[in-house]
Amino acid sequence: MTGDSFPYEFHYGAGEPRIRARLGEPLRVFTEDCFSGKLVAIDGKPREVAPFPRVNPLTGPIAVEGVRGGDILAIHLASVSPARDWGVSTVSPNFGALSGTRNNPNLQPEQAETVWIWRVGVDGRLTTTTANGREISAPLRPFHGSLGVAPPHGEVRLSVVPDSFGGNLDVADLSAGATLYLRANVDEALVYIGDGHFAQGDGELAGTAVEGALNTELIFANCGQSEDVPWPRLETDAEIAVIGCARPLEDAVRIAAHGLVNWVSRLCGLELGDAHQLVSQNCRLRIGNLVNPLYTVAAFVEKERLPRALQAFDGTHQKMRGVRKSSTQ
Amino acid sequence: MTGDSFPYEFHYGAGEPRIRARLGEPLRVFTEDCFSGKLVAIDGKPREVAPFPRVNPLTGPIAVEGVRGGDILAIHLASVSPARDWGVSTVSPNFGALSGTRNNPNLQPEQAETVWIWRVGVDGRLTTTTANGREISAPLRPFHGSLGVAPPHGEVRLSVVPDSFGGNLDVADLSAGATLYLRANVDEALVYIGDGHFAQGDGELAGTAVEGALNTELIFANCGQSEDVPWPRLETDAEIAVIGCARPLEDAVRIAAHGLVNWVSRLCGLELGDAHQLVSQNCRLRIGNLVNPLYTVAAFVEKERLPRALQAFDGTHQKMRGVRKSSTQ
Amino acid sequence: MTGDSFPYEFHYGAGEPRIRARLGEPLRVFTEDCFSGKLVAIDGKPREVAPFPRVNPLTGPIAVEGVRGGDILAIHLASVSPARDWGVSTVSPNFGALSGTRNNPNLQPEQAETVWIWRVGVDGRLTTTTANGREISAPLRPFHGSLGVAPPHGEVRLSVVPDSFGGNLDVADLSAGATLYLRANVDEALVYIGDGHFAQGDGELAGTAVEGALNTELIFANCGQSEDVPWPRLETDAEIAVIGCARPLEDAVRIAAHGLVNWVSRLCGLELGDAHQLVSQNCRLRIGNLVNPLYTVAAFVEKERLPRALQAFDGTHQKMRGVRKSSTQ
Amino acid sequence: MTGDSFPYEFHYGAGEPRIRARLGEPLRVFTEDCFSGKLVAIDGKPREVAPFPRVNPLTGPIAVEGVRGGDILAIHLASVSPARDWGVSTVSPNFGALSGTRNNPNLQPEQAETVWIWRVGVDGRLTTTTANGREISAPLRPFHGSLGVAPPHGEVRLSVVPDSFGGNLDVADLSAGATLYLRANVDEALVYIGDGHFAQGDGELAGTAVEGALNTELIFANCGQSEDVPWPRLETDAEIAVIGCARPLEDAVRIAAHGLVNWVSRLCGLELGDAHQLVSQNCRLRIGNLVNPLYTVAAFVEKERLPRALQAFDGTHQKMRGVRKSSTQ
Repeated sequence: MTGDSFPYEFHYGAGEPRIRARLGEPLRVFTEDCFSGKLVAIDGKPREVAPFPRVNPLTGPIAVEGVRGGDILAIHLASVSPARDWGVSTVSPNFGALSGTRNNPNLQPEQAETVWIWRVGVDGRLTTTTANGREISAPLRPFHGSLGVAPPHGEVRLSVVPDSFGGNLDVADLSAGATLYLRANVDEALVYIGDGHFAQGDGELAGTAVEGALNTELIFANCGQSEDVPWPRLETDAEIAVIGCARPLEDAVRIAAHGLVNWVSRLCGLELGDAHQLVSQNCRLRIGNLVNPLYTVAAFVEKERLPRALQAFDGTHQKMRGVRKSSTQ
Repeated sequence: MTGDSFPYEFHYGAGEPRIRARLGEPLRVFTEDCFSGKLVAIDGKPREVAPFPRVNPLTGPIAVEGVRGGDILAIHLASVSPARDWGVSTVSPNFGALSGTRNNPNLQPEQAETVWIWRVGVDGRLTTTTANGREISAPLRPFHGSLGVAPPHGEVRLSVVPDSFGGNLDVADLSAGATLYLRANVDEALVYIGDGHFAQGDGELAGTAVEGALNTELIFANCGQSEDVPWPRLETDAEIAVIGCARPLEDAVRIAAHGLVNWVSRLCGLELGDAHQLVSQNCRLRIGNLVNPLYTVAAFVEKERLPRALQAFDGTHQKMRGVRKSSTQ
Repeated sequence: MTGDSFPYEFHYGAGEPRIRARLGEPLRVFTEDCFSGKLVAIDGKPREVAPFPRVNPLTGPIAVEGVRGGDILAIHLASVSPARDWGVSTVSPNFGALSGTRNNPNLQPEQAETVWIWRVGVDGRLTTTTANGREISAPLRPFHGSLGVAPPHGEVRLSVVPDSFGGNLDVADLSAGATLYLRANVDEALVYIGDGHFAQGDGELAGTAVEGALNTELIFANCGQSEDVPWPRLETDAEIAVIGCARPLEDAVRIAAHGLVNWVSRLCGLELGDAHQLVSQNCRLRIGNLVNPLYTVAAFVEKERLPRALQAFDGTHQKMRGVRKSSTQ
Repeated sequence: MTGDSFPYEFHYGAGEPRIRARLGEPLRVFTEDCFSGKLVAIDGKPREVAPFPRVNPLTGPIAVEGVRGGDILAIHLASVSPARDWGVSTVSPNFGALSGTRNNPNLQPEQAETVWIWRVGVDGRLTTTTANGREISAPLRPFHGSLGVAPPHGEVRLSVVPDSFGGNLDVADLSAGATLYLRANVDEALVYIGDGHFAQGDGELAGTAVEGALNTELIFANCGQSEDVPWPRLETDAEIAVIGCARPLEDAVRIAAHGLVNWVSRLCGLELGDAHQLVSQNCRLRIGNLVNPLYTVAAFVEKERLPRALQAFDGTHQKMRGVRKSSTQ
């Protein structure tokens, strides 16, 4: 395999469109795991089979016809399913939230490299074997760690980066049934998707989730021009959320919460102070990752807590839920 | 009212015991709200009725007989109920996660001071009125923002401080049915409780929750001498957790996650690396507050995710749940 | 030696006055090193001879007659000299800026404990011997790591803590010829001094400086009641500074810079925006420590950069410089 | 003027080489100020004349012949002189260390936008006029805020970004006589230079320095292939330094200090622990900026503190100092 023939991208904002999509038409994609499917045993070498920066291969770019730069693109995850019956997780030296890292170095001896192979059970559980022959498990809850568009202002970023353009967010709510809203920075948006996670605790503390290949069905909608969506927004049937990407972690919370206060203020016709109060007494904060170049936090509020609210993006999420339902009948 | 006659404390580690408790015997306490019950209308002046540092009055010290310094004290919240039919929240200049503060100052004009009075509805909802005459709400979920013991090493800390001794944690899981484990730093521990919250979003972003007076029933147990509990631990029927207190916020996560990894390792007989992996793929991280002198994060894992685990603290939580049930029959 | 008879304090805000001082009258004090003089060889055990929290013994409390709570106390370091011909530095597990710590834990193996003994040379150089038999050195520049008063609001803090009351600041400019301004929180202020450093790089990265006992001459002045000095201020013949104590480190910078902008605005009669500009183009930021419970940063500006400025605190520093000169003739 | 014809770049890693340079041959370049020379009066509109991201125009790319990817490129600033007799500084809403920002938002009212025009005096002082008709000043100390190469791994970054490839470092020691060492990530390195500062306090707190156009003479040298220089290094006649770029600020210190400890260890043949100790007792930490996407800190040590040290990069700096001297005779 050469870099040229490998059908994935390792950057947001690079590469010629490999896939074309139309608004409202379901698109099925396969995404490789973060090790390009090459880490298959506990004696595998993560940094040899997937040497940095060739980690996190992205399916894309996907050119979405009918989208112009400045439009808000809605990306609905109609379905997200494991494409294999195994996943893989690792601990590596100089990586993870409980280790010194390149950006937070120390003089201690490094932690050892370890690989776990997880089996996908028919009971919806992931299981793996420990060093002392025990079994540990996690529930199967597949989602995409990475979903983004070409970055603003002509930047090109590695596939491990999350920022205002989405990217390596690692927010576990990016699962089947969710809609992500991102500002298209270029015409046709150029969408990149990958980094399937079969399970992940908050923060992705060890540095990897249970990584696995996914089969995913996407639906796109165009919410029109807007200057009001500087950060990724997320919607599920029950909640709306804003995602902040920053270091230190408190700044990611501030971005997310500030964005949510502003959004709630507009949806509900509340003054900023009252929207602040509503969010402050009702929000759920989820830490996506604590290991990427920027940390991520999503600030959620339940729709039923929003008094007399307009529908987010004119009901785009609900419409796409409908598309999905009719397309699968 | 003078400081001498006011029946509350504003410090952890100060004051003579006002209440004596026995292990295993339910204790009923009343706790005032953080404004000492004196902020009763939207034109009230928070900083006049409760000038810093006379905020967050604490019921205590409670001397727990039969506890020595070095023992791990289990504090079970058997019941937690609103003592009034109203609560209060505020936004103040130079305070809160979405404002510059004393410890994070800026040169912008300050935000205005605002007060909201919330009504406790029979439907289990809190409601308040907005500036433009609308109603916003939050579900009634009462818990204690503050629960702590005398600090280690002879320190005396203000009632707004959270740290290894517990204190102003603002973790919403400290509600009825939960057990908090704290290392007693002095004989009889000296317990302080207060800062009732009728509702609070993650992070307590605006700086106050819906603050309210509470009637609470506590039960104490002694888990014996241990050097293994440097940070607060929490247990509910479904989960165990470790709470970290630090700035920046990522350090609070690290403390909590590191503590949980070690605890899981011991309970389950797993090597540290496998416990790390189990936690990393399964944990829930909850941001308690982002406004106190130290930020707080609780790292949770569901008990049913722990293979062949010993009972935490030899089943202390379950025993106290039993005490509670029998005492209320 | 028992704790009772040991003539030092390990807390700010605790203990009965051991020394009384009068305004304007030079006071000579001896301060022990942070290991109480008991770490005397490279095979010594820091954590055995000075187990936490019995590190950083403080000379004091010094009651300063004629000072009331709310007064600004000026503490002039008239002279600061090594009291021994050797100093000591260490690296310890789980401590220092280039190691995981209690408040920033990781799962890596810990770094080893090491001790260096430094000789004070007649050439004004400190020298020590390395593991491979080489010599490394640092210039002798003695200063006090710790200088503080009783904390505000009745708190009692360990001797390793820096905050608004001064304390374990570890700012190397606290050397002979400097004046520190602190708000007295109680009558007679109760001053604590110690933690002599013979040399220290910025940040005290390894966790200890070249620690040594000092003989010091202090002079006190009372600058009167003021609400304007919420954080420590520092003055030398050439510069004025404000010291911020916080985590993360950028917040310490913000406190220091914000305080200096406000001070310059008043001294020079400049609008806040212009003072901001003057400070921004002229300030020197010094990182004191990156290892204490709060990090410290001092923001300095040269007096000659201040146009038509009033004298800081009505020339208190210059007057005390005069006292010193006349007292030594 | 159109974007096409404007002879500057606004990204590191983009554009075709505009200038070619040879190793050892002095190259003279002109660099525009960060507002492209278009902010000329106090009633100017920074965000109109230089709308984001068209700030910080960079002279380049400069292709350095004889440099391959993986080589360490030495860039010597032989001379750095103001190209105009005026500079400009600003305060803008939502920018600067003493304001909320896009990455650290708050709900307070924004600060006002203000512009200062500074005159370069024959006495080597910069002066400007305040709102109340006074004069404030700063010493003329010109340096380049931005000096970098094409980023690693194919990324393209905005001109305001500092990182391992150098870039918008804003470290005031990048003045005449200094040498910056950067790893070339592509053949011919592609060097970008700009963001002249006539003066700047540590941290660039207000968000801009005294910004001005510069005439600069550069000399390049190739130090050969190395994996040992992951972060920018700096050398002057008296000191060596490593520059870290990160948030929070303590992580920038850690990168810089960790890098310096490793460098000192190799130059002096000291074990890592002894190098750690030498650096810890002797280093100077300078905060470059506290306003860019990553904060920057340089950790310095004086060469005369390094026992029996090898010359950094085999004396490259000294040789280029010689080139400069001979070329100007």
